[in-house]
Amino acid sequence: MENHAFTDDLKSGLYRAIFTRRDVRGEFLPEPVPDEVLSRILMAAHHAPSVGFMQPWSFIVIRAHETKRDVHRLFEQANAEAAGMFDGERREVYETFKLEGILESPVNICVTCDRDRAGPVVLGRTHIKSMDLYSSVCAVQNLWLAARAEGIGVGWVSIYDQPALKRVLGIPRRVVPIAYLCLGYVSCFHKKPELETVGWRPRLPLDELVCFETWEGSGDEGAGLLLERIRADQEAARQETFLSEWLE
Amino acid sequence: MENHAFTDDLKSGLYRAIFTRRDVRGEFLPEPVPDEVLSRILMAAHHAPSVGFMQPWSFIVIRAHETKRDVHRLFEQANAEAAGMFDGERREVYETFKLEGILESPVNICVTCDRDRAGPVVLGRTHIKSMDLYSSVCAVQNLWLAARAEGIGVGWVSIYDQPALKRVLGIPRRVVPIAYLCLGYVSCFHKKPELETVGWRPRLPLDELVCFETWEGSGDEGAGLLLERIRADQEAARQETFLSEWLE
Repeated sequence: MENHAFTDDLKSGLYRAIFTRRDVRGEFLPEPVPDEVLSRILMAAHHAPSVGFMQPWSFIVIRAHETKRDVHRLFEQANAEAAGMFDGERREVYETFKLEGILESPVNICVTCDRDRAGPVVLGRTHIKSMDLYSSVCAVQNLWLAARAEGIGVGWVSIYDQPALKRVLGIPRRVVPIAYLCLGYVSCFHKKPELETVGWRPRLPLDELVCFETWEGSGDEGAGLLLERIRADQEAARQETFLSEWLE
Repeated sequence: MENHAFTDDLKSGLYRAIFTRRDVRGEFLPEPVPDEVLSRILMAAHHAPSVGFMQPWSFIVIRAHETKRDVHRLFEQANAEAAGMFDGERREVYETFKLEGILESPVNICVTCDRDRAGPVVLGRTHIKSMDLYSSVCAVQNLWLAARAEGIGVGWVSIYDQPALKRVLGIPRRVVPIAYLCLGYVSCFHKKPELETVGWRPRLPLDELVCFETWEGSGDEGAGLLLERIRADQEAARQETFLSEWLE
């Protein structure tokens, strides 16, 4: 059997991007993102999987202050509404969070999904209509990981009124804005997700999220061995040794 | 400014995973996937971004022939319906496609989204309700890239009746199956997406999918420079030299 696995060096690049990727809000630096870096990041997004090779995504690159300001207003409005949905102490904590870096980040990118890009009948979308939306999300995740490898932070802003954003960016009816992203160099990448650090929600134990054959199915002896292995990897991740064998 | 970018070696691992990842249907080998590999792939999925650190995903690991057979029946039923949605020559071509490797792949994984995992009000999901579904898709893409680095092929099956799949796998009402994935070692990874090779749909030119400030906005001089760079990278990708400076 031919071995198509990457060398440990190459593997470590991928895993390092996955494990050190963060949602960045407060650490953006004003330095511009060079075209060759932005191009590679967009190439990575464009090579995401898509249902029926539909490639439903487009990328609206936003660098003008006026556009950012208009989008930032939508965030402020929606975020005031959002705060009101939390109660008591939770609301007070919510209001201390910085949840976007729209104005501080040098580049914003809106990733969209054109639902009509390949006509009405799309291979693989015949039974699950949201498959094209999911394809655009895969593009977002590729973009995010490539950005991390390039030293660029990304923050996904999701607190705004969607019809209002479509008006501001002139997005036609058939197109869905999937993600509004802020990109830029950063002063630091936090070691852990900020919501974990401040105690908003803990990292869930992966072994409790894995089941076998059916929902909550506990499986056979082989299942137990896999879960043991997962627990060991989790412990290594907590001790920050999971990547260390690979990291320079 | 501190440089948080990866070294070229590490970068190349990430980009190589992104550019050589394929949707695998017909090339699965029966060799089992070792637990340490499966654990790393699941760890990668679990470290995806999620709205409000919700981590809404679960992973149903399927290795029993009986379960696969039940799911394969759902595919066969839906695929017959799907074929009927294409006309004439397109239908004939569609019927030649192998669109899943459910039975041949040693492991299937259903990635789900539990919409109630963090209660009714979720930070960042207040205005866009589908954000949790998108989080689970990010987990799928992490899993797919990690699998590629491990030499494991992944195929995303999307042709089945979703309520029927929920019944087969015992998935509760509040939980959405996001992706049904087939995993295993492969005889080869194709150089290009199969749908591109057979002429079903071409790779779209990325520079035509990038706009500036607004939908179809053509931007300023700076926009032109970025587009030039993208065209150069695309040409390099077509010539298969885009990664070559990094590849061993």
